[in-house]
Amino acid sequence: MASYKLLLLPGDGIGPEVAEGLKTVLGALKETGLASFETETDLVGGSALDAHGVPLADATLQRAKDADAILLGAVGGPKWAGVPYENRPEAGLLRLRKDLDLFANLRPAICYPALAEASALKRDLVEGLDIMIVRELTGGVYFGEPKEITSLPDGGKRAVDTQVYTSAEIERITHVAFDLAAKRSGRVASAEKHNVMKTGVLWKEVVTRVHAEHYAHLELEHVLADNCAMQLVRRPKQFDVLVMDNLFGDVLSDIAAMLTGSLGMLPSASLGAVDDKGLRRALYEPVHGSAPDIAGQDKANPIAMIGSLAMCLRYSFGLGEAADALDGAITDALAGGARTADIATEGTTPIGTKAMAEVIAQAL
Amino acid sequence: MASYKLLLLPGDGIGPEVAEGLKTVLGALKETGLASFETETDLVGGSALDAHGVPLADATLQRAKDADAILLGAVGGPKWAGVPYENRPEAGLLRLRKDLDLFANLRPAICYPALAEASALKRDLVEGLDIMIVRELTGGVYFGEPKEITSLPDGGKRAVDTQVYTSAEIERITHVAFDLAAKRSGRVASAEKHNVMKTGVLWKEVVTRVHAEHYAHLELEHVLADNCAMQLVRRPKQFDVLVMDNLFGDVLSDIAAMLTGSLGMLPSASLGAVDDKGLRRALYEPVHGSAPDIAGQDKANPIAMIGSLAMCLRYSFGLGEAADALDGAITDALAGGARTADIATEGTTPIGTKAMAEVIAQAL
Ligand SMILES: CC(C)[C@H](C(=O)O)[C@@H](O)C(=O)O
Ligand SMILES: CC(C)[C@H](C(=O)O)[C@@H](O)C(=O)O
Repeated sequence: MASYKLLLLPGDGIGPEVAEGLKTVLGALKETGLASFETETDLVGGSALDAHGVPLADATLQRAKDADAILLGAVGGPKWAGVPYENRPEAGLLRLRKDLDLFANLRPAICYPALAEASALKRDLVEGLDIMIVRELTGGVYFGEPKEITSLPDGGKRAVDTQVYTSAEIERITHVAFDLAAKRSGRVASAEKHNVMKTGVLWKEVVTRVHAEHYAHLELEHVLADNCAMQLVRRPKQFDVLVMDNLFGDVLSDIAAMLTGSLGMLPSASLGAVDDKGLRRALYEPVHGSAPDIAGQDKANPIAMIGSLAMCLRYSFGLGEAADALDGAITDALAGGARTADIATEGTTPIGTKAMAEVIAQAL
Repeated sequence: MASYKLLLLPGDGIGPEVAEGLKTVLGALKETGLASFETETDLVGGSALDAHGVPLADATLQRAKDADAILLGAVGGPKWAGVPYENRPEAGLLRLRKDLDLFANLRPAICYPALAEASALKRDLVEGLDIMIVRELTGGVYFGEPKEITSLPDGGKRAVDTQVYTSAEIERITHVAFDLAAKRSGRVASAEKHNVMKTGVLWKEVVTRVHAEHYAHLELEHVLADNCAMQLVRRPKQFDVLVMDNLFGDVLSDIAAMLTGSLGMLPSASLGAVDDKGLRRALYEPVHGSAPDIAGQDKANPIAMIGSLAMCLRYSFGLGEAADALDGAITDALAGGARTADIATEGTTPIGTKAMAEVIAQAL
């Protein structure tokens, strides 16, 4: 049995707790003989800032480059509201994404049958929902230059962010979306604002071309990002794979996640390109944030973090069997009635982060 | 009785039909003696492009400047999908906004009790919903330069849009939001991405300062735009007035509108600054778009357009009584069971655009 090198970056807020839950499950996975890991743990975000004065130390970045995969909890919190922009906790995460070239962010939005009632939407609109949002993660307004605040002669200030995309960046994320769609329903919807943005014009043009040249047998639909947000709320099941830029992906994937009623359960993968040796860098993290309001109280749901490991097994190591076993253990735990507070329904008694992780480890 | 000069720009798709409905109501308003108007009609968007080769003729812009208020239907449609970027129908609307300096876009999202069932959200989450989204409309990524597509040495292309905000631009929209909040619940939520964007940093800083200096007795909350989108879906009634930049306002106001189940009923106002003579330029338009799929079939709901006139009476002319009468006529028409197809519920027979406008005119 191969042993993989995992870098675990718990981060801030509820990050350390859900990461502990993950360790419980990693232990159980090893016992079953399904997969084995060497795990290193390091700091990112506010906790790194507190320890090293930067939200991602160079040594941590190097470890991330050397690891077979990275699992991250969450970053940020009100504690660091006053720190300079360059050192804010989020900068650590953004540096990881950019320096490891993790350009493809996969965010599944799945509505678990047991939790359909927890959605704000009517049950029939979300029951069975299974969308995959493919978000470009290393371009756009997140990283474009200039990005600055300058002083004006009148005493005021002027702030600028720059939204930039090259056709090459759009091409590679389009391939990711269609390759996924080929294994799913064969349908891709691409969202942009070509009626207002030049990056939207180029986005639409490139997606159209890549589709025609490589995936003409699959279905492509173009939708304006504002309308897409509306449609996600109105009739989410009309979509299968959605592809969009970094900023629209940030907002629309959060909407999609919230629709499912299972925000605490949704994992995500951030993938790099495949290199000469057939390897690809990858970081896996829950869709939920650091939730400072419940941090340190053993209340957080560890399923998104554990589900991120299942994605890791599947996408980074090709361990489909182990991934299935892990997903199955999560389903079994839920079917057995285990519920953390965020997904507790009437008649169930919520359990804590640790207990949930143990139930899942047992189910393995 | 003063007579006001209205410029009516029906535009494309269902625009001309809902504008006809508006004329029916303008006639009835005159008869009641509540208000009187001189109405001119002109072209904008695709229809202007077809007639004049540009989506907004200079003569039309001049008429818009001379009018006391502008009422616009909708622009755009698949017919003009292939026209050059500079001439697309939307450019006509954007030029109106920019050249008339209509920086404050007010988008109420109201859930009409009779229509709560039409929402995708569970009834108790939206019943009684009454949010006001204040969107900055003449800045940000919509107008910042550079905005271009260039060729790269490798044969590829590079597209750029520029998100720019000055503190002065943020200040004036913040005042609009708080002045509205003072007449409502006194609560403002400001949405941005200060954790990723420098414009978000400046936005948060300026809103915080304007609040402290002028509105310390009112409540201010900062919320990240992605979280705001989530919260709108999860628990929309937590918000009263929301203020945000042009692009976030585009996406989030569409979500808010969709939540209400009454998209075909929501009006909007785009207001300029008050000039030396105490006048302010203003354009009123439905939140819904040109809906090409149902255009020309007498199916569109004219209520958003007629409600836009009610906003015009109130904000541009201070005719509160006439505005109340018009809003009351809309409510009466609905209470009487009048329903266009988009808001038809079981047991009601939908009526057409014309018939709905007539029912409202009668109710006046
Ligand atoms: C934490 C923040 C920088 C991040 C983002 O904006 O990308 C988060 O919202 C996300 O979606 O992963
Ligand atoms: C038609 C389009 C240019 C416009 C916008 O993006 O502002 C529309 O979506 C709106 O919200 O008024």
